Amino acid sequence: MRFDVLTLFPEMFEGFLSSSIMKRAIDRGLVEAHIVNFRKYSTDKHRTVDDMPYGGGGGMVLKPEPLFRAVEDLVGGETERPPVVLMSPQGTTLTQQKAEQLAKHPRIILMCGHYEGFDERVRQHLVDEEISIGDYVLTGGELPAMVVMDSVIRLIPGVLGNQTSAEDDSFATGLLEYPQYTRPAEFRGMKVPDVLLSGHHQQIEEWRRKESLRRTWERRPDLLKTASLTPKDRAFLQELEKQARGLDR
Amino acid sequence: MRFDVLTLFPEMFEGFLSSSIMKRAIDRGLVEAHIVNFRKYSTDKHRTVDDMPYGGGGGMVLKPEPLFRAVEDLVGGETERPPVVLMSPQGTTLTQQKAEQLAKHPRIILMCGHYEGFDERVRQHLVDEEISIGDYVLTGGELPAMVVMDSVIRLIPGVLGNQTSAEDDSFATGLLEYPQYTRPAEFRGMKVPDVLLSGHHQQIEEWRRKESLRRTWERRPDLLKTASLTPKDRAFLQELEKQARGLDR
Repeated sequence: MRFDVLTLFPEMFEGFLSSSIMKRAIDRGLVEAHIVNFRKYSTDKHRTVDDMPYGGGGGMVLKPEPLFRAVEDLVGGETERPPVVLMSPQGTTLTQQKAEQLAKHPRIILMCGHYEGFDERVRQHLVDEEISIGDYVLTGGELPAMVVMDSVIRLIPGVLGNQTSAEDDSFATGLLEYPQYTRPAEFRGMKVPDVLLSGHHQQIEEWRRKESLRRTWERRPDLLKTASLTPKDRAFLQELEKQARGLDR
Repeated sequence: MRFDVLTLFPEMFEGFLSSSIMKRAIDRGLVEAHIVNFRKYSTDKHRTVDDMPYGGGGGMVLKPEPLFRAVEDLVGGETERPPVVLMSPQGTTLTQQKAEQLAKHPRIILMCGHYEGFDERVRQHLVDEEISIGDYVLTGGELPAMVVMDSVIRLIPGVLGNQTSAEDDSFATGLLEYPQYTRPAEFRGMKVPDVLLSGHHQQIEEWRRKESLRRTWERRPDLLKTASLTPKDRAFLQELEKQARGLDR
């Protein structure tokens, strides 16, 4: 899979590209990442990429020409243009489902603004999709682009060493993960639950499922609406509800 | 404001810390960022920070000792411990309001896992709060920690050059931003709306407010529930509803 990232701050991507899973995916030839400073597509001698907004107001606005020219240069004569995704707080919020959709494309172009807004003609005539990573304000689209890349890359077969770990994660199953413990069995008086030391696999599985349900119920009850639940799961959730209402006390 | 970030991948932060707003905030003495590799707090000679999960299953789990020792070393004899925030998909979802709350602390400790889960005793006895940046799975807490830092830092007085730009942003006003345009007035046949070229300030303000409302109504109607709206705003939204239902056609 290939990512082309249009940004005015290519150096922000260095740490991300050279570490961890991203580097491994690149080294294995599973992922290509081209970080392109679109300032080079500016047409004037001062390499201007932004200008004052029409109608007044603070802040600068990214001009249309450099971005149109950058995309045209990147896709060249290709018959099927890859999707151009604008990182924007006004976009559709990224979800795991959206990451899975994006992972199906052989190539994606990610466009990052920084401080400035984009000229509306870029949104209307160049961009296929706008994605936000959440309801908070950031300085630019660079961190969001890295978040999108990270969420997508780990879904590409062969990128994660252990294929099961992608499936066990929070959101992938629709529930939050159960609590995990490792050695020592007792740390400063804090003990690992007995069941996990019992070696009794079925009991461990049941405990984990219940803790996963409990945690989701406590922290993110909204996720229970779409999670796939067994009749036993539902019975346990009803028990939690009952306890919370004090009916069992 | 001071950030201490506990991570096994300090190099991931380099691009972020040395560019853009973050660098400026650090250079001006408004922000301190200490990136700490908590591997150095491991107690055994192999510098082990993770181990197999009790009860079996794939993946590794971060051991409690190095993280407890790291936090104790960082806060030392301070009477008031700064909040320890764990970056986790199981946490409360970051919002602009949450960023504003975090910005009030003089110091925050951010804890990042990578691949592995955390031993539950870390969550229960060391961490004050768990924060997620959204409902998608990432490789580690490093990008989320940068997202939290970026969202918080820009709220610190003096960090943004133009104080108004933080207030005009999407989410800060409760509505999505209006469309922006800059030169040229016509680009490949695509024109800037006449009103923005008119110089008529009141009409421009009205157009912008309407476009901001329209965009929010189209893309994120959920935000309208909490936005502060004037009677005029409400009338315009009713008009949009009517048009959508085809009553005016």
